[in-house]
Amino acid sequence: MNYDQILKKIDKEIKPFANEGNVSDSIHELALINPSKFGIHLVTTEKMDYSFGDSNEKFSIQSISKVLSLSYAFQFLGENIWSRVGVEPSGNPFNSLAQLEYEKGKPRNPFINAGAIVIADILVSNLKNPKNDFLSFVRNLANCNSIDFNEKVALSEKKVGFRNAALANILKSFGNLKNGVEEVLDFYFYQCSIEMTCKELAQSCYFFANGGNTYSQNQRILTESQIKRLNALMQTCGFYDESGEFAYKVGLPGKSGIGGGIMAIHPQKYCVATWSPRLNLKGNSVMGMKALELLTTETQMSIF
Amino acid sequence: MNYDQILKKIDKEIKPFANEGNVSDSIHELALINPSKFGIHLVTTEKMDYSFGDSNEKFSIQSISKVLSLSYAFQFLGENIWSRVGVEPSGNPFNSLAQLEYEKGKPRNPFINAGAIVIADILVSNLKNPKNDFLSFVRNLANCNSIDFNEKVALSEKKVGFRNAALANILKSFGNLKNGVEEVLDFYFYQCSIEMTCKELAQSCYFFANGGNTYSQNQRILTESQIKRLNALMQTCGFYDESGEFAYKVGLPGKSGIGGGIMAIHPQKYCVATWSPRLNLKGNSVMGMKALELLTTETQMSIF
Amino acid sequence: MNYDQILKKIDKEIKPFANEGNVSDSIHELALINPSKFGIHLVTTEKMDYSFGDSNEKFSIQSISKVLSLSYAFQFLGENIWSRVGVEPSGNPFNSLAQLEYEKGKPRNPFINAGAIVIADILVSNLKNPKNDFLSFVRNLANCNSIDFNEKVALSEKKVGFRNAALANILKSFGNLKNGVEEVLDFYFYQCSIEMTCKELAQSCYFFANGGNTYSQNQRILTESQIKRLNALMQTCGFYDESGEFAYKVGLPGKSGIGGGIMAIHPQKYCVATWSPRLNLKGNSVMGMKALELLTTETQMSIF
Amino acid sequence: MNYDQILKKIDKEIKPFANEGNVSDSIHELALINPSKFGIHLVTTEKMDYSFGDSNEKFSIQSISKVLSLSYAFQFLGENIWSRVGVEPSGNPFNSLAQLEYEKGKPRNPFINAGAIVIADILVSNLKNPKNDFLSFVRNLANCNSIDFNEKVALSEKKVGFRNAALANILKSFGNLKNGVEEVLDFYFYQCSIEMTCKELAQSCYFFANGGNTYSQNQRILTESQIKRLNALMQTCGFYDESGEFAYKVGLPGKSGIGGGIMAIHPQKYCVATWSPRLNLKGNSVMGMKALELLTTETQMSIF
Repeated sequence: MNYDQILKKIDKEIKPFANEGNVSDSIHELALINPSKFGIHLVTTEKMDYSFGDSNEKFSIQSISKVLSLSYAFQFLGENIWSRVGVEPSGNPFNSLAQLEYEKGKPRNPFINAGAIVIADILVSNLKNPKNDFLSFVRNLANCNSIDFNEKVALSEKKVGFRNAALANILKSFGNLKNGVEEVLDFYFYQCSIEMTCKELAQSCYFFANGGNTYSQNQRILTESQIKRLNALMQTCGFYDESGEFAYKVGLPGKSGIGGGIMAIHPQKYCVATWSPRLNLKGNSVMGMKALELLTTETQMSIF
Repeated sequence: MNYDQILKKIDKEIKPFANEGNVSDSIHELALINPSKFGIHLVTTEKMDYSFGDSNEKFSIQSISKVLSLSYAFQFLGENIWSRVGVEPSGNPFNSLAQLEYEKGKPRNPFINAGAIVIADILVSNLKNPKNDFLSFVRNLANCNSIDFNEKVALSEKKVGFRNAALANILKSFGNLKNGVEEVLDFYFYQCSIEMTCKELAQSCYFFANGGNTYSQNQRILTESQIKRLNALMQTCGFYDESGEFAYKVGLPGKSGIGGGIMAIHPQKYCVATWSPRLNLKGNSVMGMKALELLTTETQMSIF
Repeated sequence: MNYDQILKKIDKEIKPFANEGNVSDSIHELALINPSKFGIHLVTTEKMDYSFGDSNEKFSIQSISKVLSLSYAFQFLGENIWSRVGVEPSGNPFNSLAQLEYEKGKPRNPFINAGAIVIADILVSNLKNPKNDFLSFVRNLANCNSIDFNEKVALSEKKVGFRNAALANILKSFGNLKNGVEEVLDFYFYQCSIEMTCKELAQSCYFFANGGNTYSQNQRILTESQIKRLNALMQTCGFYDESGEFAYKVGLPGKSGIGGGIMAIHPQKYCVATWSPRLNLKGNSVMGMKALELLTTETQMSIF
Repeated sequence: MNYDQILKKIDKEIKPFANEGNVSDSIHELALINPSKFGIHLVTTEKMDYSFGDSNEKFSIQSISKVLSLSYAFQFLGENIWSRVGVEPSGNPFNSLAQLEYEKGKPRNPFINAGAIVIADILVSNLKNPKNDFLSFVRNLANCNSIDFNEKVALSEKKVGFRNAALANILKSFGNLKNGVEEVLDFYFYQCSIEMTCKELAQSCYFFANGGNTYSQNQRILTESQIKRLNALMQTCGFYDESGEFAYKVGLPGKSGIGGGIMAIHPQKYCVATWSPRLNLKGNSVMGMKALELLTTETQMSIF
């Protein structure tokens, strides 16, 4: 596969979408980003790297961090994790609070906020120094020590995170939060504030494409079977209320964040990360979605 | 891949699950089925056939017919079909009516009943003799003229189909049903009453695994790109409120029916059909789910 | 109380509201009404009559008929009626279908459509000639034989009554409809199509203000205790999602209809009927609401 | 009216209900109460007092405090208060969070918890020393300085008040909470922890029956028109999801609390308070409801 040529084609074909969508204004710090940024980095399982644009610029990975926290928590609890959070897509968000209540405090999956907060709670319970230990885990994936939290973003999010506080309190009222609301949210906001470049993100998430073995040291962190299951979960639940659309148009497991990042993988082939801050109405990066649609169209390879 | 051996292993390993679950009692005719039936038939894209058990016995395919009606309607409308029905998973069913209302009569996907009724409406609009034409379409897929409606089942379902009548009326109230409620429901109940054997079902749905080319005459009925999209849709929405679970455990696109059938495909590899009437609480065949989980475990091949 | 003077004052003070709101366009026949009509008729328990405006012109009483059908059904079943329909307000209508489902087909109260359809079912079960018998019941209340169904309106409503058909089918699916969906809806649409003048309506509903004794022959049709209970029900549930507002501003039990009519009573004092076709966003007559608010303000008598 | 005789009759007739229902276990401190307590105190607008049972024993008034906080806030904002909270009944609670979200953070009425938290926020904004000032307001109503918060109860409630914290955070996320979540909840939990005897409660709420003039000094705190409106609101929304039932069976405006108290009024006639800790499934005192039903049956006086 000539990824170089394909990326060049993508570069040209996504240009018309450069002004579509809007930068998220839900978090003050993120609203200040230059909206015209675009970067993409693809790393094959043979560790060949392809990229263009602002692929070496740091951005806030936000919800993409949820696949990393889940992977880490999965190491601790294994299949037991599903007693506290489900594996089903959540449908549209108009009833997310009602649903959480109807299902007695068990979030539908680990990628909606309620579910990610439960995962954060699990990490807080299992880690000695939750923030530090989680950061080490992430840094080790691609052997990249420049990866860090952005404390300003974390605090900015905390200041307006009333909806997440509501979710955490509902979870707590149902007994599905073992630690204090404040403590778990604090960890959660830091987790989401992690900054990476497209290259760092693609290499960090390389293990999803590589059967559970990391980019840095080819170290197995999850079994092949476990990785398949997480990939399936990303496929069905990774893009908020656009998971079906993403599966339909792109056909790869992945995860997006409101910082404008998307990470997607083709099992046994590659991991790819894009970044472009303008989001569509469902909260996913317009140019990122388009670039990945072009990628699977041009390579004629989706998992389907 | 030695499918023979794998199927033998499955045969042995699913035995302990033979008494789990219950036959659906929602339709009188289906409730009379012998609950201990089990059949499986796998056909590879090279047209090699593997099977065991009651794989040559007819059963009511019920909701599995939805992937066939969708494929047929997709031929007529192409991407325009998505103006009338969505591609997103529906979340749990506790709010299915509310959701249909909230989204102004546009069903979330073509596999929930409301969506399948819209697809039925499209076929009624586009076919001269809807029932006959649809039956011909299905018979041609695997060149099997013994495939037929079971009129008794269709009428039995009609007699208690108040919930589907409610859905059709809601759709009609939102202008998303072009034909009469009665006419569309009549077609819909016939469509669901189609009976096939596992072998017939696997061969009929072979085109999903084979890039859109049918088993019978290697005739292209949908483009490769279209097939990928339908496969993605089956992956995210094919198993009611257990789509995530099926993706997680089996990792293949598929579709189930309350008659106890399941059809699943591995793109470019095979199409497999199972039948066992005992259902779990979410309406999916217990032994069928288990058999397919074993299949992807033993072959070490899921799409993820 | 000088009702003559008070009505004159109301006449003057409601003028500024003459152009507010819109005539319902949900039923073709009703949409053709002259929107500037206004009539009011008040009859005291001493049978003194006061009125002005178009109080002798027939209009479609629509949902006001629900208090009459409930009264009639209450004669047959007494307190047993509450096993099939509740007495609680329904909250806002965004979740009316979900609520009906959540509460397993038992409508929250007899004044929402689902509840009124259950009441219609009870009448169909208990009456030899449902339509005729119900009409006789209504005509006898004020000894007025000119009261009649408007068949055109009934059929017009039937033609677009998909939402009511959906409700009836949901009720049927839960076993809370004993007769056929068609038959019950036919009765229901006729019931709603009854036409009366303000005078006829006020005199027909006189028994709610007069402890259960009718205007025509002072005949007891319900006990005093039963009437109090129906009045309480009208207070809490009579005005769709504006029942609280009506209680707050007017402070009388009553019932409105989308034909623009309102009937309200002050126990032991009077029954009053207003008619003005322009409705507010919640489906209640703008001038009617205003007139009744002025009435209780000027008389300084609400039940609170 | 011979209230003495009527109360004696009630005393006898409620005995069979003494073991029905269960003491609330949602708050530790309240769960310790002797469940067999029963008290009733009725004060007429002529200041005649009637009582029996444990009517001079203090109990936690809990949600009954909401009518007092609303009255106080109503003094500050008047009709403007309804821009922040509605006057409509809320329907059943299964969707309370969804409803709050659907209606963009405007609670349906001031008696559901979300609404009462908004009222608490208004008081925090308008009072110099919120807790002290509110306590003074309450003490002045019946000139009773022994009325006080129970700090233990307030803290006990705070410790498990995750659901209220969730509601406050949702309100905050919609901009309908002006002060800090912590501060408002602190005030709210104290407000709910007020303890009174039946006598104190009946005399404190006397002004609802007496056109806005207090028991203590016949001091007008709200206009007659305002009182009528609050009474209407209590009628439609005062008993959680049993407001319709209470209106239907008792026919008086009132308010209940999970401490087992109920306060009800007959305008211009009397205010009555009951206390019995065993609650029915909807959270209202079993014996209290029964006693009040007997009261309006025996006096043959409801407002309807």
